[in-house]
Amino acid sequence: MDVFKAVDMAVKGNIYEDGKVTSRTFWTSEGERKTVGIMLPGSYSFSTSTNEKMEITNGAVEVKLASGREWIGYSEGGFFLVPAGGSFEIRCDSLAEYVCSYS
Amino acid sequence: MDVFKAVDMAVKGNIYEDGKVTSRTFWTSEGERKTVGIMLPGSYSFSTSTNEKMEITNGAVEVKLASGREWIGYSEGGFFLVPAGGSFEIRCDSLAEYVCSYS
Repeated sequence: MDVFKAVDMAVKGNIYEDGKVTSRTFWTSEGERKTVGIMLPGSYSFSTSTNEKMEITNGAVEVKLASGREWIGYSEGGFFLVPAGGSFEIRCDSLAEYVCSYS
Repeated sequence: MDVFKAVDMAVKGNIYEDGKVTSRTFWTSEGERKTVGIMLPGSYSFSTSTNEKMEITNGAVEVKLASGREWIGYSEGGFFLVPAGGSFEIRCDSLAEYVCSYS
């Protein structure tokens, strides 16, 4: 089983869209803040206050960046970048999971 | 923010009930396996292969143990115990979160 080693993990989750998107903040041993999340089937939009790297760890999503015009697919192992102050739409037909890194 | 310090945390979540109940396995620095979970409003039943201690960390639930006849309420800070080989029904009217310890 893939694990994040020796992290500090928040007891309470981050809840979005009535719980259809949930994530949990954790801090790596180097002090980096990340979140690991679960997204139920649906279509969502998020805005960013810092640069974000969204890595898909399970399932598949389609993403349309505010700066883009078309939907781009990402599946397990894929990632996309969203600049600070940006926003993106994201949708999935079945449950997907992700890790978000901030910079 | 309350955190679990220096744990190993699974990258992928544990998905139940079409994602209405999700949890994430983690191991404490003493090697104890636990899960931290999020439960969307609904009614669910679970069976146990080991002894379980379910601590409510957010929201409130009602629980009926297989050995019991009535529903008992637990809210944040409360916990209930389920013996190995047992089962329980659990329901919540709004999103609840929990930590499960195994022994």
